[in-house]
Amino acid sequence: MLKLYIANKNYSSWSMRPWVLLKQAGIPFEEVMVRFGADPFTATSSFKQAVLAVSPGGRVPVLVDDGFAVWDTLAIAEYVAEKFPAKQLWPQDVQARARARSVCAEMHSGFGALRSACPMNIEADLSQTGTIVWRDQPAVRSDVQRIVTMWTELLAQHKGPLLFGGFSIADAYFAPVCMRLKNYGLPVPAPITDYIGRVCALPGVKAWMDEALAEKDFVVADEPYRVAR
Amino acid sequence: MLKLYIANKNYSSWSMRPWVLLKQAGIPFEEVMVRFGADPFTATSSFKQAVLAVSPGGRVPVLVDDGFAVWDTLAIAEYVAEKFPAKQLWPQDVQARARARSVCAEMHSGFGALRSACPMNIEADLSQTGTIVWRDQPAVRSDVQRIVTMWTELLAQHKGPLLFGGFSIADAYFAPVCMRLKNYGLPVPAPITDYIGRVCALPGVKAWMDEALAEKDFVVADEPYRVAR
Ligand SMILES: N[C@@H](CCC(=O)N[C@@H](CS)C(=O)NCC(=O)O)C(=O)O
Ligand SMILES: N[C@@H](CCC(=O)N[C@@H](CS)C(=O)NCC(=O)O)C(=O)O
Repeated sequence: MLKLYIANKNYSSWSMRPWVLLKQAGIPFEEVMVRFGADPFTATSSFKQAVLAVSPGGRVPVLVDDGFAVWDTLAIAEYVAEKFPAKQLWPQDVQARARARSVCAEMHSGFGALRSACPMNIEADLSQTGTIVWRDQPAVRSDVQRIVTMWTELLAQHKGPLLFGGFSIADAYFAPVCMRLKNYGLPVPAPITDYIGRVCALPGVKAWMDEALAEKDFVVADEPYRVAR
Repeated sequence: MLKLYIANKNYSSWSMRPWVLLKQAGIPFEEVMVRFGADPFTATSSFKQAVLAVSPGGRVPVLVDDGFAVWDTLAIAEYVAEKFPAKQLWPQDVQARARARSVCAEMHSGFGALRSACPMNIEADLSQTGTIVWRDQPAVRSDVQRIVTMWTELLAQHKGPLLFGGFSIADAYFAPVCMRLKNYGLPVPAPITDYIGRVCALPGVKAWMDEALAEKDFVVADEPYRVAR
């Protein structure tokens, strides 16, 4: 059985991607939750120790298949896509598949302004913060603009409902971005709001969100804008 | 014919990866050089305009195959690996391939301290700067420590000479890291220095380095440590 090591569902945007991918694709796996501690990222913290015991990179998510560790979201996605070809996790057309990989890799290393100004926080309504961020941070506006352009083109080209028609790794990859746009109330055109709604309604995404809401941890390092939940 | 859009060979670490990959694998391509300008990354700069004309992300490298653009290094690597299966650009063994993807993806989104303190500069001897960076920046030391551990394990497991035995995407991915370790004179164990030497001796890497040395541009934004070359 595949084991997926993740961190808190409310906060861990990287963990969300492969979890949603496996869940939505109906691939069975055992979840291993490693909670962020008060200071999650110091070498001696219990979080870091627990992750380093399975993966030398010391970050979640980690997929363990019969004792073999695959780390980093993109590598996990490729591994799962290869292991379960019938699930068609990447688009089948060569060019659509290449495009899906381009946008996932662009996400993987980019959008730093949005990611640091608007950390994922599924439980919180941060629309007031979002208003201020939007007003004051041109780099966040340009990250969102790029996302809007990208999604608009893909939805038009593949005729929806999801980025490449049916569900693919790309939707799992952008699910945490949907959470940010929604919870910070960042202004996007109606068709983008609709896409976010469709992503939130996917059973794999909904399951993650429900479990995030049920969590009771408050991780200070991930809460720049609140003092309690 | 494949077209690869890149920026200055002396400075553009992302461009180096797919160029070295194609060259070393003997895959023919046409190079399109888009030079960094004085202010390469503003929306109106000639660099940005030229790149946006072929790719909506506005970054190099971009691979154009018969009019179809593939952007972002990792997506380009996957595209080329799929298009030329006989070249075996990823390791053939499932687990080795997964591990190669994990380390490439880890590089893709990580090692921020090393990357910002030691920007690639093939032409320059920056060993004095390297000494100061090494003394003052624990995050750079820990990035290098992680790279040393990773390479040491891979070289032992696959018995060299390269990370996964023969040449693979992983070596192309880490070639710019070899440049940084070497030019900033960062202290690494002898077997790592030997690996760097073997990477520099690969014809595909050597060709890039020779052309970098022949360039005469001095890009201020990429030269935090010098006033001239
Ligand atoms: N590029 C990595 C990023 C993973 C990542 O940064 N995960 C965070 C939690 S969301 C983590 O484990 N951080 C621990 C650390 O940075 O030391 C991936 O895609 O898996
Ligand atoms: N994740 C991208 C990074 C590409 C990148 O940052 N390229 C730089 C040149 S080395 C660039 O084009 N920068 C322009 C910009 O940031 O606007 C990739 O792997 O291709």
